[in-house]
This record gives sequence, structure tokens and C-alpha cells, in this order.
Amino acid sequence: MSEVAPRLTDIADRVGQMLEALLPAVDGPEAQLVDAMRYAVLGPGKRLRPFFVLESGGLFDLDETALLRVACALECIHAYSLVHDDLPCMDDDDLRRGRPTVHKAFDEATAVLAGDALQALAFEILADPETHHDPRVRSDLVLALARAAGARGMCGGQMIDLLGVRDDLGAVARMQRLKTGALIAVAFEMPLIMAHAGEAERHALMGFAQDLGLAYQIVDDILDHDGEAAVLGKATGKDADRGKTNYVTLLGIEDARARLALLVSQTRSHLEPFGPQADFLRSSVDFVLDRRN
Amino acid sequence: MSEVAPRLTDIADRVGQMLEALLPAVDGPEAQLVDAMRYAVLGPGKRLRPFFVLESGGLFDLDETALLRVACALECIHAYSLVHDDLPCMDDDDLRRGRPTVHKAFDEATAVLAGDALQALAFEILADPETHHDPRVRSDLVLALARAAGARGMCGGQMIDLLGVRDDLGAVARMQRLKTGALIAVAFEMPLIMAHAGEAERHALMGFAQDLGLAYQIVDDILDHDGEAAVLGKATGKDADRGKTNYVTLLGIEDARARLALLVSQTRSHLEPFGPQADFLRSSVDFVLDRRN
Repeated sequence: MSEVAPRLTDIADRVGQMLEALLPAVDGPEAQLVDAMRYAVLGPGKRLRPFFVLESGGLFDLDETALLRVACALECIHAYSLVHDDLPCMDDDDLRRGRPTVHKAFDEATAVLAGDALQALAFEILADPETHHDPRVRSDLVLALARAAGARGMCGGQMIDLLGVRDDLGAVARMQRLKTGALIAVAFEMPLIMAHAGEAERHALMGFAQDLGLAYQIVDDILDHDGEAAVLGKATGKDADRGKTNYVTLLGIEDARARLALLVSQTRSHLEPFGPQADFLRSSVDFVLDRRN
Repeated sequence: MSEVAPRLTDIADRVGQMLEALLPAVDGPEAQLVDAMRYAVLGPGKRLRPFFVLESGGLFDLDETALLRVACALECIHAYSLVHDDLPCMDDDDLRRGRPTVHKAFDEATAVLAGDALQALAFEILADPETHHDPRVRSDLVLALARAAGARGMCGGQMIDLLGVRDDLGAVARMQRLKTGALIAVAFEMPLIMAHAGEAERHALMGFAQDLGLAYQIVDDILDHDGEAAVLGKATGKDADRGKTNYVTLLGIEDARARLALLVSQTRSHLEPFGPQADFLRSSVDFVLDRRN
């Protein structure tokens, strides 16, 4: 497990370098847009979704450059969603990972446009022949990411979150599955597409992704309950302040912790079909869920 | 030319029906998101970009259902850009085509999300095997639309527009080419991709698209100068009020009209390689540019 941190750092570095290369070079007056895109996507971050792409891709011996490009596309979607989520009309956050949010560092209009352009860039990367030689794979990657990002995925989850429609665990679970779960799941789905993986491998890895996503959300809710702003680099206790329910407000902190522990052991069991090849991914679960890293 | 109006209406009807079928069916609490997407994309509109897709596709005898799906994807991008463009932090418009804008009919957060989800839907449609049997075509369509919509296309143009960096005709031309020109050009580029068209056809049609886009912008600036709000369904004279330059403020109204006339005849000449087959597209230019229809 101690090897996870350097591996995560290594992947974050390489994703950062690849993103530098993939961001458009612009010297016209629209340069401010690209500056805001760079600020949003090149800022500090664990690059957890890229880590999932690279590590699950490793199970199938996939080309690392291709995986890095796919990871960058996913990171563009993740980054754009944070930029829009932070807007005054959404969560109204001034701070993200210890830095001013994009609309604070630039302005609201630039933040809206930078998010929009990052979304377009994600699909431009996936559809580029440089990403994969097989056009069917490229097209299927676009389809998977578009579904995960859209109304039946991340955007739908954000709508539920905004409306605060989550009276019970079922509603909270649906919100999580769409808002954060869809992008985590697609981090595992895209390497499956690239590997032309069979049903058994697909079933195992998607089960892992689903449980991991849920565990990740419970950790988030626990941190929101008792985290420290200095550690997280953002405000905490916001859900309760806003009267929003989450796993902790609905289950209580003790039950939430118990459920998390159960989920973590269940998560690892999904990886059995992959044998020792999945040891690293298996061992990374604790580290990944320890959000204070 | 009198046949253009019914043809445009016919295409608008069929695009509307296809969009109805392509919009996600959602019955969860996120339904409000899909309602806002529907409101944005199914509202009144001439469906000019779909018209361009269908008419240029007709030059190559392409399958109409495929063209309609491609037209819908493009219309999703166009609709999302209007939703975000109307936001208080952008152009702050309350009225669009005579109806309340999306953030007025719903709220700002829903408008941001509906725009985001419409962009994702556009790429989901293009990457769907239902759109085209050849995955290379699907992937190339995604690439073309993503480039047209992103930082080196529409979003870049909107950034220039927001910054008001247009001291001379060159800057105004660059803004137009990106902000509105890119989506008009891709309406012609996508059928070229579907037809595996050669260089000569590509050159001719893209030249037509470029001049038409420019003419369209000059008409817009003329209407902004002397249009009536009641006819356009939106406020007018806004560029001058905001101290923004455009073709009319830079050239003067007389020169702008003269340049438009020259451009219109030049536009038609691009279509010569297509012979009489392009008669309808050629004859549609005047109608298309008469924005009071």
C-alpha cells in the first residue's frame, strides 16, 4: 500500500504533462479562455480518475500513451464539472483545493466558457486518431464518456443534488451513482472498451467501480461531517448547513463508518477474477479512500 | 426561392421530431434537467444549421435519417451555446425568440446544467452506431464538431466577444469566424465527412460555408443596428449600447450593406462545381439571409 502514493504521484505528473500538450495553443485575444482552462485542469489534484484508468488499463496490458490520453479526456470532464459546480449560481464556492475557484481567479463568464471548452476538448481528444488506431474504439469511448457526463449521468446527479431531493437512502444513492459514480465507473469502462474485454471481466471491474464510487461518496460525507477545512482545502459541514441529507445525516456517523468498512472489503472481492495481477489495484483501495492524503 | 420556406419548415418539423426521440426519457428527480433541455432545444427556431446539414447532404445523396441525427447533434450544441450565452454573467438576456430564456423559465443553475447536458448529448448522438454504420465516420464527426465547438471554435469566439477585443475589421472577422462561423462551417463539413468527399467538393462547400457565415454575421449586425425588437423577438442595438464594435459600427451602415451584396454573389459562385444539383442551396441564400422570415 505504501507504493500507491508514488505511483499516484507519477501518474499525476504524466497526466499533467500530457494535458499541457493537449491543451490548445492560442495566441489570439481568446488566450484568456485557454488560461482559464489550464488553471482549471492543471491545478493541484490527486488525479484519481486518471489513476483508475491507468491501473485498470494495466490489467489488460494496454498502451500507456493511449491510456494517458483517455485519462486526460476524463480529467477534462471532471475539471469542467468542478468549475461549473463552483459557480455562484451552483455551490458558490470561492476555494477549491486551496486556491481561488476559476470564477474568482478570472470571472464568471470566463468560468462558464472554460468549462464548456474543456468538455469539448474531452471529446476532441477521444475522437483523435492519435488516441487509438481503431475508430470503433474511439467512437465507443466517446459514447461511454458522453453518457457518463450527460443527463443520465453526472449532470443528472448534479440536478438531483441542487434540488435537494433526497429524503431517503435510495434517493441519496441515486444522486451519488449519477453525480460522482458515473465518472468513476467510466474510468474503468473505457479501458474495458480499449481491451475488447469479455463479459466476466466487465462485470467484475464495473462491480468494483460501483462499490468504490459509493465508498468514495461515504468518505466524502464523513469528511464533510468532521473534516478540517485546512486539510481538504475547501469548506466543510456544508451539506448539514444547507439542510442537505447525505449518508452521514441519514445513517448517523457510526453507521456510516460501519457501512464504509463493509463496502471496502466487498470492493476488493470483485477483483478476484483478475488474480494477483490486480494486487496493486486491490491494495490501492484504502489509500484512495483516505482523502486526507 | 419561394420553395425555401416550406422546405425549411419541413426540416424544422422533422428535426423537432427527431430531437423529441433523442432527448433522454427520465422519470427521476432529475426530470427538471431534461425539461430545461427540451425547453432550450425544442423552442421556436428556424433550424438553419440543420437546414444546411440536410441540403448539403442532399448534394451527395446521403441517408436522410443519418443527416437528421447529425443535424440534431449540431442543434444541441447551438442550443446549449444560446442557453449559456443568455446567462446573467454573459449577455444577460431575458428574452430569446420571444420567450423567457432558460434561466428565466427555470433558474440559473438549471440553465448551466441543461447547457452542459445538451453538449454531452450532441456527442452521444454522433457516437451512437444508429447515426452511421461506419465507426470512422462517427469518430470523425465527433472530432469535427468538438473542434468547432471548443476553444479554437465557438467558445474561443465567445471569449473574444466577451472581452470586446475588436478594434478593427480583422479582429471582428476573427470573432465572427470562431463564434458563429465555426458552427455554420461544420454544418457543411459533417456531410462532407459522411460522403467521403474529395478535395474539390470540400474546398467548394467550405468556401460557400465561410462566406455564408460572414454574410450571416453582417446581416446580424445590420439588424442589430436597425432591427425591431418585435420582429426579432429580442432586444436590438445592443452592440452599440455596450460600446462593442461590429461590421456596422466599423464600416458604417452603407458600406456594410455594400459588402453584404458583394459577399452574397460570391457565396453562390462557390457552388459552381456542383452544377444544377446545387440550385436549391444556391437559391436559398437570399432567404437564409433574410432574418425577418
